[in-house]
Amino acid sequence: MTTFAETTDAQLTDATDEATSGPSNAEVSAADAAVVFHSWSKQGGLKPLPLAGGSGTTVWDHDGNHYLDFSGQLVFTNMGHQHPKIIAGITEQLSKLTTVAPAHGNATRAEAARLILQRAPEGFEKVFFTAGGADANENAIRMARLVTGRDKVLSRYRSYHGNTGAAIVATGDWRRIPNEYATGHVHFFGPFLYRSEFWASTPEEECARALHHLERTVQAEGPESIAAILLESVPGTAGIMVPPPGYLSGVRAICDRYGILLILDEVMAGFGRTGEWFALDAHDVRPDLITFAKGVNSGYVPVGGVIISSDIAHAFDDRVFPGGLTYSGHPLAAASIVATQKAMAEEGAVENAKRVGRDLLAPGLAELAAKHPVIGEVRGTGVFWALDLVKDPQTREPLATATVAGIKSDLISRGMLPFATDNRIHVVPPLNVSDDEVAQALELYDAALTAFEG
Amino acid sequence: MTTFAETTDAQLTDATDEATSGPSNAEVSAADAAVVFHSWSKQGGLKPLPLAGGSGTTVWDHDGNHYLDFSGQLVFTNMGHQHPKIIAGITEQLSKLTTVAPAHGNATRAEAARLILQRAPEGFEKVFFTAGGADANENAIRMARLVTGRDKVLSRYRSYHGNTGAAIVATGDWRRIPNEYATGHVHFFGPFLYRSEFWASTPEEECARALHHLERTVQAEGPESIAAILLESVPGTAGIMVPPPGYLSGVRAICDRYGILLILDEVMAGFGRTGEWFALDAHDVRPDLITFAKGVNSGYVPVGGVIISSDIAHAFDDRVFPGGLTYSGHPLAAASIVATQKAMAEEGAVENAKRVGRDLLAPGLAELAAKHPVIGEVRGTGVFWALDLVKDPQTREPLATATVAGIKSDLISRGMLPFATDNRIHVVPPLNVSDDEVAQALELYDAALTAFEG
Ligand SMILES: Cc1ncc(COP(=O)(O)O)c(C=O)c1O
Ligand SMILES: Cc1ncc(COP(=O)(O)O)c(C=O)c1O
Repeated sequence: MTTFAETTDAQLTDATDEATSGPSNAEVSAADAAVVFHSWSKQGGLKPLPLAGGSGTTVWDHDGNHYLDFSGQLVFTNMGHQHPKIIAGITEQLSKLTTVAPAHGNATRAEAARLILQRAPEGFEKVFFTAGGADANENAIRMARLVTGRDKVLSRYRSYHGNTGAAIVATGDWRRIPNEYATGHVHFFGPFLYRSEFWASTPEEECARALHHLERTVQAEGPESIAAILLESVPGTAGIMVPPPGYLSGVRAICDRYGILLILDEVMAGFGRTGEWFALDAHDVRPDLITFAKGVNSGYVPVGGVIISSDIAHAFDDRVFPGGLTYSGHPLAAASIVATQKAMAEEGAVENAKRVGRDLLAPGLAELAAKHPVIGEVRGTGVFWALDLVKDPQTREPLATATVAGIKSDLISRGMLPFATDNRIHVVPPLNVSDDEVAQALELYDAALTAFEG
Repeated sequence: MTTFAETTDAQLTDATDEATSGPSNAEVSAADAAVVFHSWSKQGGLKPLPLAGGSGTTVWDHDGNHYLDFSGQLVFTNMGHQHPKIIAGITEQLSKLTTVAPAHGNATRAEAARLILQRAPEGFEKVFFTAGGADANENAIRMARLVTGRDKVLSRYRSYHGNTGAAIVATGDWRRIPNEYATGHVHFFGPFLYRSEFWASTPEEECARALHHLERTVQAEGPESIAAILLESVPGTAGIMVPPPGYLSGVRAICDRYGILLILDEVMAGFGRTGEWFALDAHDVRPDLITFAKGVNSGYVPVGGVIISSDIAHAFDDRVFPGGLTYSGHPLAAASIVATQKAMAEEGAVENAKRVGRDLLAPGLAELAAKHPVIGEVRGTGVFWALDLVKDPQTREPLATATVAGIKSDLISRGMLPFATDNRIHVVPPLNVSDDEVAQALELYDAALTAFEG
């Protein structure tokens, strides 16, 4: 990744020059908050930190401050900011044909689908493109219902699947509650040993009991009414809980026993974040449908989609698929996928994520946890880690969200963009993060937690 | 638009060169159909016409065929293909910062919101950005429900609002039926004199009866249960029915009478298509929420959104808005909006659409209708017209969809990309279409209808 590092330096210099001439943070932040309505927020008194530019793992604002971006923004800049090969791929498509209707054919779109399918397990044949993760899940659920002729969808309480009609009601967290206008959704508890719902004390016990709980839920709901089980391979926003060995294959077995389809949501976990191309690759499981977005193109152009197994794809050979959207298979989005997929392969980004997770983040974060009792648990894999912050390591009572927000502000003032949610900090740099950047980040977390405890 | 025309010629030559060296139509079409799952289709035997490039109102395939694009793809390329100013705007943002999380501030995003708000009626204050039209409607419905504390949404049978959970059930057409998994949706009949549901014989009668029918539906459903009435200002996919004078203001009056919010869906009709910035500008009506996508940026980057009136925006000052998406306010999408909005204003594109509609399409299509009895009705405004094709002008029985598909194929073989749906051809060129291109298109429609009748 030498060329990448070279570009970075040049761009950083440009940016610092520009910051001195353009508008200030205060100006941009006020202009944005005056006219932009923000996601998942109270709109009063918002002062969004305005970002002006970025390169690799670094972003900067309009006052010339630089930040180490360990948030991946919303855990999607898997190849970092402004990756030159991805920018070049988008630029090339821009010069040819930016947009076509989904009904037309398009060479770039076909290539994007081909490259995505290369990474899927055996037996996957087609890709349905959407504009993001929510509509990917909407369409996967649609396919499952139509193919099975059943209507219920089971998903976890600790999960996030998107903000549209069905996706938000499949979601397990608090965001579902004000939005329950979709039918056919049932929730269950998944494995999460640190906060076990099953009074378990080992991973094996947690796994067995979680599977028992799921199978009992299936039986009690009536298997003949259940179209699909929808799961994040590794729940992301809900806390990065890598499932215990045997859980996902156990879910697959339950699905097979009752004729239920398995949809794995790889929107956040997919495309290298876990140190595998797909998070499911570390588990012995073949789903029927895989949903993706975010990492597939590092978020450079809005896109998502459903990877469809042959059986399901062919179920619509002679039957109209009653779903679609204007920007399905958008060429500019497709070009960003093609360039990202090639860059990831050429630069060994997934391997790097695995190495960084195993050799640097796992030991580094464990060391932090040993030093700071506020860290109740460290869990994760690849470049996908959570620090579960607690008031008391014994009771595991979560640290208050407002307290975590304070730690986040402190980290920002130290020059890091962290990802903080609920009582957790998620450690989610790009896959191509350098060893130096990881070392810097570990120091910054350490300093902020020390300041907090002091 | 001199520079635009110059660029066009250069690009057309390039394209013809490229077509001779690259893959063929058959190759690209087969590659696409093998791995891409297509919207609203049977997947078996698909042979999508592959598009390789475009410029202005022209697109071309891989065999070197050129087509006059009177489809706007899916009625969204409002500034035509590869508009140099829009390409330049996207390219500039690409060099700075492609993507940020929605929670950050961003100067380009703020500018996009400001330019959109300039075109909205008085009293609109904020923009919530989404990735397309469906999620724009999802979030508008969400806002209406939360602000009113009511749950029902009333919409027309002849309408399309998108493919996600709530949007597809708000939709009136056949696509709703296999997807009815959302609660709180009620449908009613709107004004459409040519196929009146109200036994009316004049526009005034149709308008008064349609309003009566709507008010009776509101009363029968229980006004205190109704959050919003959701309407396309001019229903698009459903057949381009410009509402009779007084209808939309009459709906507003009903809303006011019963404390119901009015959401106008301008996804297809907005940003100049009707010869006004918003279709609602030709009607004496102020909605509470406006949804948009498509024309706002000519579809160059997937984006949509909700334009929010002050009251509704401020209702969330101290209350969390429980909706959001990863790509809300995406900088690359925002840059495409800024450039499109500026180009539209600088080039008088909306005025051109109005002039073309009034001076060329209205008389030209009327002439076609006089000559071809298969055209039952011509209706529209600006660059937004429908030819309602019938078996018999007396009974108005719609021409079979398969027959219309035949006319479409014939038009394609004559070098035009038409927009055909149900029993209709929609005449929907870009706003900046030239007078010559309109003349060519009228000749092609004439020739194809003559061949059909012969
Ligand atoms: C696992 C998962 N699924 C779906 C989504 C929704 O994606 P989008 O925000 O693009 O609609 C997200 C977004 O964070 C996600 O993390
Ligand atoms: C009026 C209207 N609303 C909403 C939509 C949905 O937009 P999208 O396909 O971007 O989700 C469309 C698409 O054709 C539309 O015409």
